[in-house]
Amino acid sequence: MSKLIRVGAAQIEPKLGDLEANRKKIKSFIEKAAKLSIDLLVFPELANSGYNFASREEAEKCAEKIEDSRTIKLVEDLSSEFNMYIVLGFNEKGEDGLYNSAVLISPDKGVLGVYRKVHLFYREKEIYTPGNSFYVFDTKIGKIGIMICFDWIFPEATRTLALKGAEIICHPANLVLPYCPKVMPWRALENRVFTITANRIGEERDLRFIGMSVICSPKAEYLAIASPNLEEIIFADINPSLARDKKITPLNDIFQDRRSDVYFS
Amino acid sequence: MSKLIRVGAAQIEPKLGDLEANRKKIKSFIEKAAKLSIDLLVFPELANSGYNFASREEAEKCAEKIEDSRTIKLVEDLSSEFNMYIVLGFNEKGEDGLYNSAVLISPDKGVLGVYRKVHLFYREKEIYTPGNSFYVFDTKIGKIGIMICFDWIFPEATRTLALKGAEIICHPANLVLPYCPKVMPWRALENRVFTITANRIGEERDLRFIGMSVICSPKAEYLAIASPNLEEIIFADINPSLARDKKITPLNDIFQDRRSDVYFS
Repeated sequence: MSKLIRVGAAQIEPKLGDLEANRKKIKSFIEKAAKLSIDLLVFPELANSGYNFASREEAEKCAEKIEDSRTIKLVEDLSSEFNMYIVLGFNEKGEDGLYNSAVLISPDKGVLGVYRKVHLFYREKEIYTPGNSFYVFDTKIGKIGIMICFDWIFPEATRTLALKGAEIICHPANLVLPYCPKVMPWRALENRVFTITANRIGEERDLRFIGMSVICSPKAEYLAIASPNLEEIIFADINPSLARDKKITPLNDIFQDRRSDVYFS
Repeated sequence: MSKLIRVGAAQIEPKLGDLEANRKKIKSFIEKAAKLSIDLLVFPELANSGYNFASREEAEKCAEKIEDSRTIKLVEDLSSEFNMYIVLGFNEKGEDGLYNSAVLISPDKGVLGVYRKVHLFYREKEIYTPGNSFYVFDTKIGKIGIMICFDWIFPEATRTLALKGAEIICHPANLVLPYCPKVMPWRALENRVFTITANRIGEERDLRFIGMSVICSPKAEYLAIASPNLEEIIFADINPSLARDKKITPLNDIFQDRRSDVYFS
């Protein structure tokens, strides 16, 4: 795979608890992205439901099972119609609990995979069950890894995805702290991958989300940055195969140079 | 340990291959630091010898054995005289090869420890033998970990030191790429430690060093930044015990939240 693909982040403002309104918004942003010929579009964390639930009960009321979800069905249809890969932050009702998930949907196969957030932030711990793995999905447009929001602060998250072969890390987020958009170029650099952080905007109860969605290159460049307060799509044209080159000098391959024998213990 | 200590970086320009000149410069900067009441002073990588050797042979000519080193003896004497902990980048002649090392010298015990650079940069691979461990040293002023220059790009290096208990990471460097001073606040944040990057200035053959030594806090603040091109001391007053607090929200301790069970494999 050496051709350019166009990747984007849909920076939107989901409405807390209003699945129908959120479906409409997601649909309209996929349609906008299609007009921009985007091949891979990332939505924020919990885009189907909103974020700041007062209780687990409130979160559960607008959680959806993937197999029954009208939101997923809609996104599958639009993905197929527009030949677009889509990563959607998703309030998931699992077999044994609620998950703060992200679903990867492909034009030809529907749901390709589900990532359940591993590192839960603050009161999410009172609502969601944490996930137990990071996944990389091999697609026609490149190898796609997924992490969600607070995962960014753990360098092990991006590292794990990159070691598993991710060329593009899709990163739905609902950021409230100012750090992440500043750190993502370095996560991209230290792993030589592309990153797409799709954040949300707006306020929910006592939380204010910071926008500033970013797309970063393996050379720590910002390829696109969104505003702090507008709904918008940002996008960039990337060659995912560049992420396979882990050399930063003729004698330094940052993956081969890793010294697992001396880390941590 | 909850009192403030004053930590500094001596941003100097060592002279390639001139041990005597470098000893004089090191002495004069320790004396300057003493006038500033600095408790812990970090010198750049290979401060005794300069960096950009044309060959292993040239590097060996000005490598020193720690036990015979006039440089180490001098620094031990000054450390004791001024009651100052000192970390010195050191071109080390080991029992079985050359090492790009950093030596920690304490006022009361002389050489407390030696770190040999684990991740060698570019042509250093043709000269030096890599080290095999990261160390943290428990001192009267706090727990001190050491890494050298290019180690910064591997998040595992700072992480390993922090997991081993480092409160302050001393980071002698000879940086030529522009990234590291921008990344260090995030290394400090993601591990909730203090960092002291002591870089050098000047040129050697085809290499130009970028200066910009930085001292960073566990909250990703720059506590001090040096110029790109002047010899100078930067310093800051820190409370190392703050680095023991790994909480970033009331429910998130970034060390307890680590998920070793899902990383890497």
